[in-house]
Amino acid sequence: MTPAMLHRDRAAAAMAAEDLAALVATTYQNVYYASGFRSFGQPILRTTQVYAVVARDGLDRPAVAHPIGEADMAAQFPVQGTLHPFGTFYIEPGRLGTDDPEDARLRRYGVEATPLPSAEEALVAALSAAGVRHGRVGIDEIGIAPDVLHRVRARCADLELLPAARLWRRIRAVKTDAEVARLERATHIVEDATEAALAAASEGITEAEMAHVFDTAVVRGGGHPLFTVIAFGAHAACPNAVPGARRLRRGDLIRFDVGCTYEGYCSDIARTAVLGAPSARQADAYRAILAGQDAALAVIRPGVSAAEVFDAAVEGVRRAGLPRYRRQHVGHGVGLEIYDDPLLGPGDATLLEPGMVLEVETPYYELGFGGLQVEDTVVVTEAGCCVLTRSSRDMRRV
Amino acid sequence: MTPAMLHRDRAAAAMAAEDLAALVATTYQNVYYASGFRSFGQPILRTTQVYAVVARDGLDRPAVAHPIGEADMAAQFPVQGTLHPFGTFYIEPGRLGTDDPEDARLRRYGVEATPLPSAEEALVAALSAAGVRHGRVGIDEIGIAPDVLHRVRARCADLELLPAARLWRRIRAVKTDAEVARLERATHIVEDATEAALAAASEGITEAEMAHVFDTAVVRGGGHPLFTVIAFGAHAACPNAVPGARRLRRGDLIRFDVGCTYEGYCSDIARTAVLGAPSARQADAYRAILAGQDAALAVIRPGVSAAEVFDAAVEGVRRAGLPRYRRQHVGHGVGLEIYDDPLLGPGDATLLEPGMVLEVETPYYELGFGGLQVEDTVVVTEAGCCVLTRSSRDMRRV
Repeated sequence: MTPAMLHRDRAAAAMAAEDLAALVATTYQNVYYASGFRSFGQPILRTTQVYAVVARDGLDRPAVAHPIGEADMAAQFPVQGTLHPFGTFYIEPGRLGTDDPEDARLRRYGVEATPLPSAEEALVAALSAAGVRHGRVGIDEIGIAPDVLHRVRARCADLELLPAARLWRRIRAVKTDAEVARLERATHIVEDATEAALAAASEGITEAEMAHVFDTAVVRGGGHPLFTVIAFGAHAACPNAVPGARRLRRGDLIRFDVGCTYEGYCSDIARTAVLGAPSARQADAYRAILAGQDAALAVIRPGVSAAEVFDAAVEGVRRAGLPRYRRQHVGHGVGLEIYDDPLLGPGDATLLEPGMVLEVETPYYELGFGGLQVEDTVVVTEAGCCVLTRSSRDMRRV
Repeated sequence: MTPAMLHRDRAAAAMAAEDLAALVATTYQNVYYASGFRSFGQPILRTTQVYAVVARDGLDRPAVAHPIGEADMAAQFPVQGTLHPFGTFYIEPGRLGTDDPEDARLRRYGVEATPLPSAEEALVAALSAAGVRHGRVGIDEIGIAPDVLHRVRARCADLELLPAARLWRRIRAVKTDAEVARLERATHIVEDATEAALAAASEGITEAEMAHVFDTAVVRGGGHPLFTVIAFGAHAACPNAVPGARRLRRGDLIRFDVGCTYEGYCSDIARTAVLGAPSARQADAYRAILAGQDAALAVIRPGVSAAEVFDAAVEGVRRAGLPRYRRQHVGHGVGLEIYDDPLLGPGDATLLEPGMVLEVETPYYELGFGGLQVEDTVVVTEAGCCVLTRSSRDMRRV
């Protein structure tokens, strides 16, 4: 049984606060989170329609609507709750008996099940199976095709369907232990890949070549490459630098901003290195951003607001050597999405809670000079925070 | 200058037929296609908002609305047309002069530009820059956040905004030569990776280990792993088999259904192998599905309908040894999305046109027995079709 990652207490509280009878997940991330169902199509084809309904009084019995062609995903990763397939797909029953439980599930879900004609009929059936007959229902408006939502609305006159993408994000902001373990692993995979890429750094190597070393190491580590910013010299001033043909020269900054997924969970860390000895300017600026990150890490604890973390980080950078430092945020939650809640932004009153997992960063970009960045994954604990990254946060010399 | 992939003749014809003054792209694929702008965030964070407006009388001058934090993407891959940034992001101007054209663009787009406060204001500005003041405008309803669309609708009372995701798909169905070249490369990368994985096949290897060899080879080849179905024995009956701990045994079927992206373009091919000599049943069933694929390839040419290809393939499999063969489709277009138009499905009257790139497949799944599949990439030519895959379509013995 694939355990749904759903934080039931938070889901129950959020639904009570909004007076919702049920919540509907419609993106890969929320469907997986609510039910354990892993869609094959959603991550690679945006129009794939899969939904998971969780009723307030049945959080452990999700009802999943999915294309019958994805029935095998539930056979391979069984979910608690009910399945409501739609569409057409053929797996032949065959003449061979089999004792394998996966084969038995494939038979039940993919061969013997009678799919409904359409996604909206499957969603209506899932709502019914979850016991949702009237009242307010929050539905993630991001993943459902607008025309399907329109038709479901027309068919369910007794339900008030309200957009709930933000509510899902709020529920997901605090992680369970199982989620933290995956986030830690995702973080370690990109740390190890960063070390592999740094080991390959030498005069004349191209950004693309180092990125290739990095991506290969991510795959070797069991991760899936998500994004790989590796930039040399002035190119490091591009926040989203795409590794290219630029060759590494002595004295160049090397900025890493890299992430992968592991079992659906994201990482996003940053490190900065120099080929040879850093210039005084490089060393001073890095000391400033590191001091800002230190200041942020020092204030993170339950009850502190996102804005307080932001202020501490920006003030920390300014005091330590970059007096005109500006940023729009100094980090963000991380989870099934690369940007989970909360955002560590100015004026944000969201209070930190134990179990939130955050990326904390103080990047600095300057035309001609390049870019410097340090970003680490931390989990908010009862007393403060615990840094999940293991590698040195210092500027590296290679 | 990054050339937009937009097929201008098809876009102009589609807009004329629907009486549209402009089209708005809202997904990564359509924005890239329409303008050449490569969003960094859209492929990894579904809520990232980027739009490209193309007016019917200005197809070569797209207007792109993007987060200012992605201004560097246009600096790295310059686009023809206008940029309309929104939001907040800081790149410091610095004191260093630079002659580098990329730095000059980064200064103009990312430092000196004045971003608008919100995505909807940027889209309104882009519509205005494209000269779209009234009339019917098709907007891809899939990528724009529903609340943004709602606010744009309220602000643009003189525009009739109509859903256009299907129209974008129809325009994209016929590929330019530059697109075909990328699709060919994406196909060759997964073919080479399949050979690498087959070379690693030996008794006792796990599916996950072979998938790892495959994924590493994709990265080495310059691709980005998209999906990797490698399944042994009865597990191959799962259409979306996730490679796991199952070990390869003598006589097992090995089914590959694999794809990657190269410069945004997708591949999706399938091959079948056996460890040792195939059984008579395995060999006979494979001969049948290969005959069906042959029959499909034989009828593909301009003016033939998708349904005719479907009928030829299914009939071909039935005649060659699987008399009860059933399928919901025998292939699909491939391009910036893994499922582009057309679908080679029953009763589909869409006529094939030169320049369409198709995946042609006749998979067979049977409980207990496993799965067999052959899938190849072809481009429709004036006289028939040209197969872009280079490797043998026969069942492989390893």
